[in-house]
Amino acid sequence: MNSVLTPLDFLARSARVYRDQVAVVEDERRLTYAEFNQRIHRLASALRKRGIAPGDRVAVLAPNTLAALEPHFAVPLAGAVLVMLNTRLQAAELAWILDHCGAKVLIADPQLLPSLDPVRAGLQYLEYTTGDHEALVASGDFPFADPPPPEEDGIICINYTSGTTGFPKGVMFTHRGAYINALGEALEHGLNARSVYLWIVPLFHCNGWCFSWAVTAAGGRNVCLRQPDPQRMVELIQREGVTHLCGAPVVVASLTQYCATHAIRFEHGLKIVTAGAPPSPAVIRAAVEIGAEVAHVYGLTETYGPHTICAWCEEWDALPLDERAQLKARQGVPYLIAGTDLRVVDSEMRDIPADALTMGEVVMRGNNVMLGYYRNPEATAEAFRGGWFHSGDIAVMHPNGYIEIRDRKKDIVISGGENISSIEVEKVLYDHPAVLECAIVAMPDDKWGEAPKAFVALKPGREASAGELIEFCRARLAHFKCPRAVEFGPLPKTATGKIRKNELRERVWAGREKKVN
Amino acid sequence: MNSVLTPLDFLARSARVYRDQVAVVEDERRLTYAEFNQRIHRLASALRKRGIAPGDRVAVLAPNTLAALEPHFAVPLAGAVLVMLNTRLQAAELAWILDHCGAKVLIADPQLLPSLDPVRAGLQYLEYTTGDHEALVASGDFPFADPPPPEEDGIICINYTSGTTGFPKGVMFTHRGAYINALGEALEHGLNARSVYLWIVPLFHCNGWCFSWAVTAAGGRNVCLRQPDPQRMVELIQREGVTHLCGAPVVVASLTQYCATHAIRFEHGLKIVTAGAPPSPAVIRAAVEIGAEVAHVYGLTETYGPHTICAWCEEWDALPLDERAQLKARQGVPYLIAGTDLRVVDSEMRDIPADALTMGEVVMRGNNVMLGYYRNPEATAEAFRGGWFHSGDIAVMHPNGYIEIRDRKKDIVISGGENISSIEVEKVLYDHPAVLECAIVAMPDDKWGEAPKAFVALKPGREASAGELIEFCRARLAHFKCPRAVEFGPLPKTATGKIRKNELRERVWAGREKKVN
Repeated sequence: MNSVLTPLDFLARSARVYRDQVAVVEDERRLTYAEFNQRIHRLASALRKRGIAPGDRVAVLAPNTLAALEPHFAVPLAGAVLVMLNTRLQAAELAWILDHCGAKVLIADPQLLPSLDPVRAGLQYLEYTTGDHEALVASGDFPFADPPPPEEDGIICINYTSGTTGFPKGVMFTHRGAYINALGEALEHGLNARSVYLWIVPLFHCNGWCFSWAVTAAGGRNVCLRQPDPQRMVELIQREGVTHLCGAPVVVASLTQYCATHAIRFEHGLKIVTAGAPPSPAVIRAAVEIGAEVAHVYGLTETYGPHTICAWCEEWDALPLDERAQLKARQGVPYLIAGTDLRVVDSEMRDIPADALTMGEVVMRGNNVMLGYYRNPEATAEAFRGGWFHSGDIAVMHPNGYIEIRDRKKDIVISGGENISSIEVEKVLYDHPAVLECAIVAMPDDKWGEAPKAFVALKPGREASAGELIEFCRARLAHFKCPRAVEFGPLPKTATGKIRKNELRERVWAGREKKVN
Repeated sequence: MNSVLTPLDFLARSARVYRDQVAVVEDERRLTYAEFNQRIHRLASALRKRGIAPGDRVAVLAPNTLAALEPHFAVPLAGAVLVMLNTRLQAAELAWILDHCGAKVLIADPQLLPSLDPVRAGLQYLEYTTGDHEALVASGDFPFADPPPPEEDGIICINYTSGTTGFPKGVMFTHRGAYINALGEALEHGLNARSVYLWIVPLFHCNGWCFSWAVTAAGGRNVCLRQPDPQRMVELIQREGVTHLCGAPVVVASLTQYCATHAIRFEHGLKIVTAGAPPSPAVIRAAVEIGAEVAHVYGLTETYGPHTICAWCEEWDALPLDERAQLKARQGVPYLIAGTDLRVVDSEMRDIPADALTMGEVVMRGNNVMLGYYRNPEATAEAFRGGWFHSGDIAVMHPNGYIEIRDRKKDIVISGGENISSIEVEKVLYDHPAVLECAIVAMPDDKWGEAPKAFVALKPGREASAGELIEFCRARLAHFKCPRAVEFGPLPKTATGKIRKNELRERVWAGREKKVN
């Protein structure tokens, strides 16, 4: 007897089962699940009073506070579609997204609201904007009268990707997908009613990798944090007994460094889920030393956040740290709820051999892959060619079935028919003591078609010549992989801190046609 | 992007991710997930060779061995429907079920096969019977060619209930329901790839409460056990490092008694999931003493096994054992995956007050409620009247939202308009040192309509008069709840050991009409 799979059920159940347990901590404020549920009903009611009808979009611009967490339930409870905005975007980028999704209501953090001033007058669809989440909640009724029945395949949210090229694309999630992915997070990371989750990964990144819904599913405790500085993180981990947090390796590194400096160790067991880049041996060692365990996961906005996990094998426990780090650096295997819906394929959609050498593109499908891009059927069709979502990530498959990402597809350098992973070369350059930041891009080469070129920013006060860096690479890599040229200077970056390789490529290829694979 | 929810994905994924890990232990034999998967493909292929087409039924009569476990995946992989047979049934009962479900193939344990001899010639649909599971597996091919695509709402199995009245009813599960329920077990009990599950609950009881699929979903280890005698259980728990087992309180009691006698304690952490009756304080204390933790769950075949769990609240830890046992005796709250699809209602389908006193019937709906009864639309319509499945269990709801079962609906005694829980009175009688077994049923009463009558079997060598037992009750219960009559003698039982209260009722009401509520 089917019932609709929707994250709204998680809230309804936890409001009943865990009514007196703490659902959310924000600074000195503590809300039980009964209170959290009441506020969410009020917020849904308030949205309806502001004219929000089923299917309408509601945008949110807020750091990891109640204003970002509560709309994850209140907006779908009102039958509407949530659009979380990246707080690091510029006004013009926000305006583009607001116009594209046609949001009628915007809930903004009071500190962020002024950043929209330059564009507010020109927005086409926005009817109501508030910087006062509390007042909005207070203006609604409990219980929210007649919530529209959720639809399993209905859209619950749209997450705009901050691509390095072109306009943002709006990734659509469904109630079913969000439900299953939330269970996936709970299963992979062992969330339960005694879990305490510290909010580091922004709620605007794939809804905090679906932990927005997973923590409530488990009846765990959300610990909000406006700005993830290490001292405050440590205070909250200790005060609240945090059991889980997610974050990029750089956040993990800042936490472990702070702990090392202050001789802090967590004795209660802390699980750190990291993604975005493989955790280095140093990060893994440092995490162990503060009493934490690191799980490495991989995914994209289009896969509701994490799709794979480097599932740990018991027999690896006994290996030396460097080998463990190498294994942990693999992106691994599909989440339980992803089944076997992940492949690494060549351009003809044939599976590449699991030889740890042959590179192919990672493709996925199934319940933890998006419905499509909002109002963008061309990009959707292109992404789903052959019936699988094309991640644009190039990986090898190890003989044990674990994938390991080698590069972004567009960043691969093809020289004399050989694929060169830009990441592999960059890793070597980063080992050079003078290198602060670097990027490898393809440059035209009359003989080989393409050849690697390095863009390098040196550490302040350090020096290195082009020849020295090339030699450094040649001592460590097959020669065809080494840069033929090095250019020094600061590197261009996106709002979220990614190096704009496309800009560097354009500079290199100005006036010439680079073949897109 | 939807993909079909089916337990077949669990096997496919674990065969890939956990290929070299042990999936099944049976006596001295150990199968990896790769081997388990291969054998299941061969079995599916062998079934096809025996004429099994999608939708056909395949019956299994076996204790908790590979012959019972592997068909849970192989039969649906062949597109067919699994019918697990209760090994305690008589030949005539088995024949009735085989004819009703129309199974074309029967896989039987060689020790059990002869029990069918009296009826085999008369079976209407059975075309192929084997007592040699190994030979059947060996006769199939790997990989199984062209498995039919599973359907999310397709029937995966039919479980016949051993009701105390009438013919058995065939409870239909779907792929979707089995998938979600397996995730539910994994979530509630924390199954993961390091879990080791000891098979005590029969695989023919709601597919071992869906652990048949849940253990493989998690990549855990199945430890088979033909006969759950305590010595062998202890050997396996110690040898394999068992982390989880499920069983009725009587099985738990036999395990703990054996451990107490032999001064055995499990130091690695053992979780025991129990259902069928609330675990007594003695059982809970004994479990703690052997290093185990008890979870109390409740459900029916119609709810894929467990539907509720007595979710433990941290603040209860500090209470004295008797109070903890009282709390643990509650059937509790819906499983995470059951959402809020459980109510306790009066005859008009109104929710009864959560006052721990008012009794009502437990009703459920949603993804962990059966599709219906096979070839029995009348019973299905009756069970689902008002859109909810009627459990036939009478419960109160505590102010904290936890349910506590008071009785089977048909066993309630209604005296002067008051509901008397037969279980409540029986509990008191069981406290009397001379009482071995007892049953309370309603008897006609000219003044009050009905009154409680006790049927009692005394312990060997012990004596007690009717008056003494009635007085014993009156000292402990409201007088209207106490038996007006006591009859001594052995109690009639079903094949599965349940007391046949309906037979006792018929004896009492012979020639008179008992009002059915």
